[in-house]
Amino acid sequence: MPTERRLARIREVLARRQPDLTVVMDNVHKPHNLAAIARTCDAVGVLEVHAICREGPVSLSRKVAMGTHKWVPVRSHRSVAEAYAALRGAGFAILAADLSADARDYREVDYTRPTAIVVGAELDGISEEASRGADGRIVIPLHGMAASLNVSVATAVILYEALRQREAAGLYDAPRLDPALHQRLLVEWAYP
Amino acid sequence: MPTERRLARIREVLARRQPDLTVVMDNVHKPHNLAAIARTCDAVGVLEVHAICREGPVSLSRKVAMGTHKWVPVRSHRSVAEAYAALRGAGFAILAADLSADARDYREVDYTRPTAIVVGAELDGISEEASRGADGRIVIPLHGMAASLNVSVATAVILYEALRQREAAGLYDAPRLDPALHQRLLVEWAYP
Ligand SMILES: C[S@@+](CC[C@H](N)C(=O)[O-])C[C@H]1O[C@@H](n2cnc3c(N)ncnc32)[C@H](O)[C@@H]1O
Ligand SMILES: C[S@@+](CC[C@H](N)C(=O)[O-])C[C@H]1O[C@@H](n2cnc3c(N)ncnc32)[C@H](O)[C@@H]1O
Repeated sequence: MPTERRLARIREVLARRQPDLTVVMDNVHKPHNLAAIARTCDAVGVLEVHAICREGPVSLSRKVAMGTHKWVPVRSHRSVAEAYAALRGAGFAILAADLSADARDYREVDYTRPTAIVVGAELDGISEEASRGADGRIVIPLHGMAASLNVSVATAVILYEALRQREAAGLYDAPRLDPALHQRLLVEWAYP
Repeated sequence: MPTERRLARIREVLARRQPDLTVVMDNVHKPHNLAAIARTCDAVGVLEVHAICREGPVSLSRKVAMGTHKWVPVRSHRSVAEAYAALRGAGFAILAADLSADARDYREVDYTRPTAIVVGAELDGISEEASRGADGRIVIPLHGMAASLNVSVATAVILYEALRQREAAGLYDAPRLDPALHQRLLVEWAYP
């Protein structure tokens, strides 16, 4: 049985979940990156993350099972097209975090709208398909010699800008999940 | 021989280096965290990072030798006292990124002043000595179930707030290194 304190904490966290903010991992496979991304997603209130995982979902869920996976489930998709269709169907704007020339500064974007942020893998970056298929591209300024940031770092920098905007807009102040989902997650999290 | 393009790039990067912004790693040892932190430091223009490394400097430098170490040297210290004395001697305010109750929101701090940000290890966090000995404690808001962020993620979130403030204050617009140091680093970076 969960303690009263534990139940109260779960309720508080669920009351701050942001069902309209998510991350899409395009071929991100390194376990420590997946774990760091899931943890940051949890911290900013992302409800679930998406993974484009051409080899199928099995290995991914095993790898993510390092900690935070329970609080931030990973939804796997077999292709960019499948992932983007699902997200667009749910009303998300899709923004690719990409080091391309036509990317906008990540701070110029309005993250209070339903937003999915796509990030890519260490060596290959984001796939051409995922970048071009997005509604826009965003970039974090780099003033140094290295050509990019670590993927979990880049994800966090963007998510904390989203959090800043969402705090200012009051999106953490009142529950955003529908009551049925809130209730289902409360039971799931409290009685594992 | 470096190409003209390479030399121009090195000059540009040196012209944006921030000699009065740094990170102190208190017992951070995991190579992928060290590498991610060094890379973010490079990206925001940190000139060198500090490591409190009670077992001595050797293993650290070997571990960091994964990439960005060349652009962001690591200065090792045997104790918190030694590190803090060196930083205070150089005019830095020391801010511990710590999940303690009396920490201020990290966005309330003025990072345009000479600032050293202290971060701790995955399991133990920042040492009591490093936290209490700092000039202040700062915390990144967490709205989820997990009790903390990954250390390289936390470092990046704070450094990009510092970058935001420093961009607004014009600190990336004109060279900040003294000419002799600029020249020395130019030679070091261009002719490895
Ligand atoms: C290590 S980077 C990939 C580098 C890859 N060689 C490339 O050229 O794209 C891994 C992922 O992190 C994200 N990322 C890293 N640095 C970024 C930045 N400065 N702006 C936006 N996204 C970034 C992108 O999603 C990228 O695909
Ligand atoms: C994984 S955390 C350490 C957790 C450790 N169990 C504790 O209680 O301190 C590693 C380091 O990242 C930094 N950090 C992580 N999350 C943070 C947050 N929300 N605010 C400030 N610093 C944070 C701190 O420097 C911390 O020592």
